[in-house]
Amino acid sequence: MVDSPADAESPAVIALGGNTLLGEQGPWTVEAQLEVIERTARHVADVVEGGQDVVLTHGNGPQVGNLLLQQDAAPETPRLPLDVLVAETQAQIGYLLQQALDNELAASPDFLTIVTQVVVDADDPAFETPTKPVGPFYTEAAAAEKPFETRRVGDGERPFRRVVPSPEPVEVVEADEIARLVERGNLVVCGGGGGVPVVRDGRLRGVEAVVDKDKTSQLLGAALDAAVLVVLTDVEHAYVNYGEADERALREVEAAELRTHLRNGEFGAGSMRPKVEACLRFVEGAGERAVIASPEHLAAALAGEAGTQIRA
Amino acid sequence: MVDSPADAESPAVIALGGNTLLGEQGPWTVEAQLEVIERTARHVADVVEGGQDVVLTHGNGPQVGNLLLQQDAAPETPRLPLDVLVAETQAQIGYLLQQALDNELAASPDFLTIVTQVVVDADDPAFETPTKPVGPFYTEAAAAEKPFETRRVGDGERPFRRVVPSPEPVEVVEADEIARLVERGNLVVCGGGGGVPVVRDGRLRGVEAVVDKDKTSQLLGAALDAAVLVVLTDVEHAYVNYGEADERALREVEAAELRTHLRNGEFGAGSMRPKVEACLRFVEGAGERAVIASPEHLAAALAGEAGTQIRA
Repeated sequence: MVDSPADAESPAVIALGGNTLLGEQGPWTVEAQLEVIERTARHVADVVEGGQDVVLTHGNGPQVGNLLLQQDAAPETPRLPLDVLVAETQAQIGYLLQQALDNELAASPDFLTIVTQVVVDADDPAFETPTKPVGPFYTEAAAAEKPFETRRVGDGERPFRRVVPSPEPVEVVEADEIARLVERGNLVVCGGGGGVPVVRDGRLRGVEAVVDKDKTSQLLGAALDAAVLVVLTDVEHAYVNYGEADERALREVEAAELRTHLRNGEFGAGSMRPKVEACLRFVEGAGERAVIASPEHLAAALAGEAGTQIRA
Repeated sequence: MVDSPADAESPAVIALGGNTLLGEQGPWTVEAQLEVIERTARHVADVVEGGQDVVLTHGNGPQVGNLLLQQDAAPETPRLPLDVLVAETQAQIGYLLQQALDNELAASPDFLTIVTQVVVDADDPAFETPTKPVGPFYTEAAAAEKPFETRRVGDGERPFRRVVPSPEPVEVVEADEIARLVERGNLVVCGGGGGVPVVRDGRLRGVEAVVDKDKTSQLLGAALDAAVLVVLTDVEHAYVNYGEADERALREVEAAELRTHLRNGEFGAGSMRPKVEACLRFVEGAGERAVIASPEHLAAALAGEAGTQIRA
């Protein structure tokens, strides 16, 4: 257990990447899923026992993909829209996380999983050009018959997938309630899968889109006056010249320098770039520090001793 | 809008039956589902605007059945156990409810959907003899090959269904956190589908079972010191000699008399009996009053002017 110098009065928002929720290889079984989640829970428990309030967010890509695949396979059941399926994954993952965390932290108040809506702008250009692939792979013929937009994303027999918009998050609907929970010392899992995307046109209304979970985590961190945003992923740092002979791990980096690397296209669109963008937004706002690290180094990352430490 | 004389300091626990979440006839589409949920939200909004704090619970039978059916249809996806699927339905339904309620009650704090675990006894005799049918119908041959217990529940080509235990709920894991939310004036959706069934053997562990939502609502009501438990269903009252020529609606009934009717087998096992049992437990405990009513009479039911009003 590492004592965290992070302001214990102020929560750390910890964004759990896919590798904290599912195994890297092997068949996906609920037993394997539980094993990975319990390992993640132990890392989180260490920092909670170190006095750090935490708010957990998480991804849901494979989970929402399976729900889409299962709906496809059972046409006699109602086809629920993507916003409803994202909500389902918040409870699927949240339940397993809160149970594993309650088991690790018997003395603490129980973790609460909060179904979380995130407002996006109905005029977000992302709605014009859906780019985010979700769910099953289709043949060209099958794709042509789907009631939603598909795009060729690869080769082989089934190169088509559904693509959905990935608009920018602008407001976490339940942010005030979550802030009060955190003030009272509750431990919260929320914003799963980037939040359930809704637009506010007088009323709240779900939309078929997915929101980047790291950007929603940044927004939530700002709303909660979090001192630290931690983005957990499957590498120990962000790198420049990643995969090249002269690859260099970024350990301590200022926002200005990191933004230059971002502009120079150092970070992969689907992987590191949104994490770096979320961290930059956080420290360029009121956030003190953002960290990109791997789950096993969470406590050290919070202590400023691991990962890529980003300051304004 | 009806002013409710119910103690505004003490929440009413309102258990939403299937007919408050889904249409009675016609194909199940998400549009039809939303229409029914929005109607339910208006009834709930009336009593909230009348000054009544509410905690909403709800059923999930058709929803969890569809998830089981979809898993069956997509064997290439992981088969998640029933506890995880129950959690998914809590967010599926909770999300749609909280959004509809937020839209009806723009001035109130946002509704929060809390993923809720309910502890059952690992030695509950229900685990010896699973009785609750869930999910798809199977042929005898298909049923024989399933990795879970099935039972003949009807005639026709597919007379078999999976049966699961329905143990008694003994503790709502998140009850303290929900109580504090209610004290602070939050409006909460919780205990969906009777709660996610878990056993406590040193640690919390999910089990493949379903818990009666009305019994969990009673347990939650007791934990929250609720003055009133309202069980909403598709009839206006509980009846004696139901469906007979001398059918009689119960309007005002004392626990002792209702228990006699229960002993005499007046109430159907799958339908009215668990509702009556939950109401009796509630008023035989610290509960002031329990009501069985139809959703359109919610405000009048809380005001003591509709449904079957049950007192100790």
